[in-house]
Amino acid sequence: MKRKINMGMVGGGPGSFIGIVHFNGAVLDGQIDLVCGAFSSDPKKSRITGEQYYLSPERAYSSYQEMIEKEKKLPEGVQMDFLCIATPNHVHYEPAKLALENGFHVVSDKPLTYNTEEAENLVKLVEKTGLIFAVTHAYTGYPMVKEARKLVWEGGLGKIRKIVVEYPQGWLTTLLEKTDSVQASWRTDPARSGKAGCMGDIGTHALNLAEYISGLKVTELCADLSIFVPGRKLDDDGNVLVRYDNGAKGILFASQIAAGEENDLNIRIYGEKGGIRWYQMEPNTLYINWLDKPIEIRRAGNDYMSSIAKYNTRLPFGHPEGLIEAFANIYRNVATCIQHRLEGTKPPPEALDFPTVYDGLRGMKFIDALIESNKSNHKWTRFV
Amino acid sequence: MKRKINMGMVGGGPGSFIGIVHFNGAVLDGQIDLVCGAFSSDPKKSRITGEQYYLSPERAYSSYQEMIEKEKKLPEGVQMDFLCIATPNHVHYEPAKLALENGFHVVSDKPLTYNTEEAENLVKLVEKTGLIFAVTHAYTGYPMVKEARKLVWEGGLGKIRKIVVEYPQGWLTTLLEKTDSVQASWRTDPARSGKAGCMGDIGTHALNLAEYISGLKVTELCADLSIFVPGRKLDDDGNVLVRYDNGAKGILFASQIAAGEENDLNIRIYGEKGGIRWYQMEPNTLYINWLDKPIEIRRAGNDYMSSIAKYNTRLPFGHPEGLIEAFANIYRNVATCIQHRLEGTKPPPEALDFPTVYDGLRGMKFIDALIESNKSNHKWTRFV
Amino acid sequence: MKRKINMGMVGGGPGSFIGIVHFNGAVLDGQIDLVCGAFSSDPKKSRITGEQYYLSPERAYSSYQEMIEKEKKLPEGVQMDFLCIATPNHVHYEPAKLALENGFHVVSDKPLTYNTEEAENLVKLVEKTGLIFAVTHAYTGYPMVKEARKLVWEGGLGKIRKIVVEYPQGWLTTLLEKTDSVQASWRTDPARSGKAGCMGDIGTHALNLAEYISGLKVTELCADLSIFVPGRKLDDDGNVLVRYDNGAKGILFASQIAAGEENDLNIRIYGEKGGIRWYQMEPNTLYINWLDKPIEIRRAGNDYMSSIAKYNTRLPFGHPEGLIEAFANIYRNVATCIQHRLEGTKPPPEALDFPTVYDGLRGMKFIDALIESNKSNHKWTRFV
Amino acid sequence: MKRKINMGMVGGGPGSFIGIVHFNGAVLDGQIDLVCGAFSSDPKKSRITGEQYYLSPERAYSSYQEMIEKEKKLPEGVQMDFLCIATPNHVHYEPAKLALENGFHVVSDKPLTYNTEEAENLVKLVEKTGLIFAVTHAYTGYPMVKEARKLVWEGGLGKIRKIVVEYPQGWLTTLLEKTDSVQASWRTDPARSGKAGCMGDIGTHALNLAEYISGLKVTELCADLSIFVPGRKLDDDGNVLVRYDNGAKGILFASQIAAGEENDLNIRIYGEKGGIRWYQMEPNTLYINWLDKPIEIRRAGNDYMSSIAKYNTRLPFGHPEGLIEAFANIYRNVATCIQHRLEGTKPPPEALDFPTVYDGLRGMKFIDALIESNKSNHKWTRFV
Repeated sequence: MKRKINMGMVGGGPGSFIGIVHFNGAVLDGQIDLVCGAFSSDPKKSRITGEQYYLSPERAYSSYQEMIEKEKKLPEGVQMDFLCIATPNHVHYEPAKLALENGFHVVSDKPLTYNTEEAENLVKLVEKTGLIFAVTHAYTGYPMVKEARKLVWEGGLGKIRKIVVEYPQGWLTTLLEKTDSVQASWRTDPARSGKAGCMGDIGTHALNLAEYISGLKVTELCADLSIFVPGRKLDDDGNVLVRYDNGAKGILFASQIAAGEENDLNIRIYGEKGGIRWYQMEPNTLYINWLDKPIEIRRAGNDYMSSIAKYNTRLPFGHPEGLIEAFANIYRNVATCIQHRLEGTKPPPEALDFPTVYDGLRGMKFIDALIESNKSNHKWTRFV
Repeated sequence: MKRKINMGMVGGGPGSFIGIVHFNGAVLDGQIDLVCGAFSSDPKKSRITGEQYYLSPERAYSSYQEMIEKEKKLPEGVQMDFLCIATPNHVHYEPAKLALENGFHVVSDKPLTYNTEEAENLVKLVEKTGLIFAVTHAYTGYPMVKEARKLVWEGGLGKIRKIVVEYPQGWLTTLLEKTDSVQASWRTDPARSGKAGCMGDIGTHALNLAEYISGLKVTELCADLSIFVPGRKLDDDGNVLVRYDNGAKGILFASQIAAGEENDLNIRIYGEKGGIRWYQMEPNTLYINWLDKPIEIRRAGNDYMSSIAKYNTRLPFGHPEGLIEAFANIYRNVATCIQHRLEGTKPPPEALDFPTVYDGLRGMKFIDALIESNKSNHKWTRFV
Repeated sequence: MKRKINMGMVGGGPGSFIGIVHFNGAVLDGQIDLVCGAFSSDPKKSRITGEQYYLSPERAYSSYQEMIEKEKKLPEGVQMDFLCIATPNHVHYEPAKLALENGFHVVSDKPLTYNTEEAENLVKLVEKTGLIFAVTHAYTGYPMVKEARKLVWEGGLGKIRKIVVEYPQGWLTTLLEKTDSVQASWRTDPARSGKAGCMGDIGTHALNLAEYISGLKVTELCADLSIFVPGRKLDDDGNVLVRYDNGAKGILFASQIAAGEENDLNIRIYGEKGGIRWYQMEPNTLYINWLDKPIEIRRAGNDYMSSIAKYNTRLPFGHPEGLIEAFANIYRNVATCIQHRLEGTKPPPEALDFPTVYDGLRGMKFIDALIESNKSNHKWTRFV
Repeated sequence: MKRKINMGMVGGGPGSFIGIVHFNGAVLDGQIDLVCGAFSSDPKKSRITGEQYYLSPERAYSSYQEMIEKEKKLPEGVQMDFLCIATPNHVHYEPAKLALENGFHVVSDKPLTYNTEEAENLVKLVEKTGLIFAVTHAYTGYPMVKEARKLVWEGGLGKIRKIVVEYPQGWLTTLLEKTDSVQASWRTDPARSGKAGCMGDIGTHALNLAEYISGLKVTELCADLSIFVPGRKLDDDGNVLVRYDNGAKGILFASQIAAGEENDLNIRIYGEKGGIRWYQMEPNTLYINWLDKPIEIRRAGNDYMSSIAKYNTRLPFGHPEGLIEAFANIYRNVATCIQHRLEGTKPPPEALDFPTVYDGLRGMKFIDALIESNKSNHKWTRFV
């Protein structure tokens, strides 16, 4: 019989931003229950967070190791089915590895790991175990992103020539890591974030979005990364020239010192017949600028939308959906895939549409290429 | 000990639009569980919907009467705590009445009832039982609506002079009720919708929004209601001049034949010092046009926002929230109030900020006044 | 041989807002020269303004009477061909009358006259003399307004059902007429403005725009006019329900106390197939919301635009044109018509597309109907 | 005595886009008359264009050489005061040189010349003759660009860190030069356009805008130029990383194959305190995103605007001005400077605010640096 899918969470304790977003997204559609968590390495904090989620006290664990060990002993249907990883980057790999080794599916935040070696290990482990592994490049969960992808993939814009993808934020304009900001603290710390700051945190989202919609791959890049805020240890801004495998060219930039910008991930893709514009902060709208026709605006929830966009839309037109719903689209797909595994059936193709460990690995290699390019005097650095 | 609050639902079966929105909003924050439902008067349909929600089969009831009777016998903590009413208008009153009479709190969709007499009875019953009764004028759940309200109430705009509130939709531009549209069918049917169509369905939202933000009350109105689509039985458009109790004047219009419009509830309020603009389809933004200063745009999630707006915001700036989150703000408040009742404590003032049975009654009287004015040759009809 | 058309101006001296706009619009395309003016009743001020326009000192007159008398004696080709009237409302009629009686064409600002009787006299005089008489409802000079008109007239939206036309301004939010504001002073003075303030000044523009685009006529109205600013003598705000001759209904409002609004004339027209939106402050864009297709945005200067829109556009797409260009479209048409009269030929139909004395008269009658309705307790006042 | 300033024009015959824009801008404010022209190298075409401008037939010349020679012999006040150059790039230098050598001031379109050597010669000639030389980087003529510049120069944004300037157009998405398009033909022809296509035509505008507003200079760049349309001879797209002399970094891109884009020059500048956004297609609005305050929108024509912005604005707020007015701002400044020379007085500082031959030379060197960088495998190319 159909049952709810059980989620365990590592991370997401006090001060976490993303843990609660994962939770909201996971439970929104009623397919997933949070059943356990190792929310903090501090047992008390973990217990308090567990209470906030109305968990049984014994399932608010003090470590992911304990959680995985104990959950494994619970009966199927009671134990967690998958692990949600909502920790800082340096604590992605070990819980993911342990979960996979113990037969649990994984939904991990991005970037996938602390470094590329870890990411490659996870790919191998996923391939070996056959388990489901999703990475929450959640912006590709928006229905209009999927509409854009379908339009581009079907050749609606003709051959793609130019892609401009941007991710300006301004929240790190000052040395916020010297305040009590938990978020700023770990995201700017090489020991916890990895070798990139801004480019790992949000530059990887920009790459993922561009490649997801266009179906193209960046093959060469030329990066100019900066640390603008004195005292900061990792890049807080990066401008990148990119070239794609079909001959298209473009720009990718990300910034966390674009003062006054909120979270303005956006993309423009130009082909031979027209161009599209999509803005994360106005996610239910897709602009299509045709070469020789009036501008077209597609809006989520309309009958004229593609079936894949409709599949990822909950509300009728004009009733805004947001980022939690984009997360929920990934979680719903993961839950559906797990459900079908439980039943021994094949999930519908729509349910397979979520970012995986391969996207995660690509993000890690992108970081490597950016760092390499930034140090180089040569114009172009290969990225494959 | 704190526990999750249990919700039962009446309505929300196949073809329902709003049932699932109530569900999403209720469960989003993890405080509420759906434990039972009478989703359809067809037992099979009710059971199927129950399965979709992973309910125990025995708690997918065939009628709200059965549900209330049986739930009442379950132990506290297991039984439903409150009833969510997501049925067409003519089935609001009876379940609400029965729930109240049996000690269950209620969250009802709007308009409150089929007619004003029913609404007045519910008010009496709420006053008599002391139970919680929320009405989902959900648009007032948006954080920027609350920010606007605070600004206006504190005199930020000076004395209010003019209010323009609009609710254009286009989905009933054709005789959709003659197709298989469940939504169009009951909403245009006097036997199920009540004596108003468009004005009851969405005109009441417009009134609620204007009065909620401004703190003013409409005292006189002059209505021109229309049925534009041949064969339709209830108004599908209405233009109304309104006057407020402080001397302000304004316009209120609602339409379901504004072809091409999605769900563009919006409001402009002008005082002596400036004016505000808010658009439901871009809900996280509040425009303030000052008399002699640059335009100001406030955005949800920023540090400069008021505490009441922050209380109703989940995500950091630039991460869009939508209508489900607005619903969830109401549900969270209701759950918090119920929780405090269980504990015998007083809820925080923020939690009391949701539309109640009195708002519902006011909506019903508004419908009466509109209908009366529409028939009258006199310019002004009193509305108190 | 073709020659430039000569313009004389009455009004437009120091403190005038609109005189210079008429001038800019008249000379923009190089078809019209300003050759004389009676810019002020103060001879010195008139002379100074004449110098600013590089006029011969002897053609900067002290009164329009003197100007008309003396210009009449100059040879054709030297004398003014038409009179531009840029005075306050109470000085529209006499100069217009005198000009017509002496064989000069007229371009007058709006509202046409101080009262309806004067307007009717002008109509008779125009009919008697056969002279050209344009009234600068300049907003209908924008190319996208003409595009909208063509779309609607050709049935592109199907039968029109609803029209919402708005003209919010905020510049009279305070008692500006008690400062040294020349503009506020006469526009709020019954002796100079006429019996209406806001509704005459800008309400008439709203009516003209709605009727011009839709091709419909308002036949009934219900007005609620207000004086919000204590000490003011004429209406500064008006909300109006309107009904059109084809059964369409709608709203028309104008305000000069909509604090923080600049000059936001805008219109929405809904038919059976879709709706349009146009905003004066973003004049080169026309939004078309289709019933069942994506939103369409037409932009001035594109190849796909109608010929009448192209005729009224100077620049390629993406190169903004503004209000001066809209004025210039009227002036160019007037100059073309005069040119053809000089040549004894028939002007092209595009050149006849400008507001005339009949539009001016209609505006005056609209003011009468608004005032009558505002005083009445009956809901509907006829307007024909 | 004050008199109008006389303009002669070279170029601007049939098929020209920019000639008429220069004319409109020059005459808009009534300070300048077009008195002569060499509109085409085809005498008949030149004569026809002259007639359209109502010129005396003898002043519609067959060549700029003839024009300069003959105009020189006319008396001061009759002869042209300055030459407007509205020809393709390869015919900028010779007329400019001849005009300067014969004592005429010059207003030239951009890019300044066909190559840098010519530009350097013009600089020398201007320095030698002391004549006025304006280059129509007209986008810096907009009032909101001047407001932005003032804000940035006064440190309103703090130290500047990042500049993103973009100029996407789509009109050359197809091989338009193989049709009868006069514009496409010469702009894509190395013999007439120079060594750059898109980057010379519009990339130079982007540079000028960024440097004008920021007061910074690009010192290093890394360019990736492309020819996307098969058969085209010059770049139709370019992506450039740039570094500024204060340590700021940024992106500059221009494209004429951004299908569906009209003329979307836009800029974002981020400092330590906030960022600004300005869009040429919505020119009367300036967005300021503050680090920790609501977004601020400044609009042309308001009292709160800076004096330099007001000086370049004609109409009250909410009455749109466009590109012709931006051109007119340059022409008005040039006319004012010439007027003051005639009077032997010093022009007001506001009148000196127009792009000069030095800006033109900088544009030419920018083209050189882009071409050099594009060929290089080194990441950075110096640009001084």
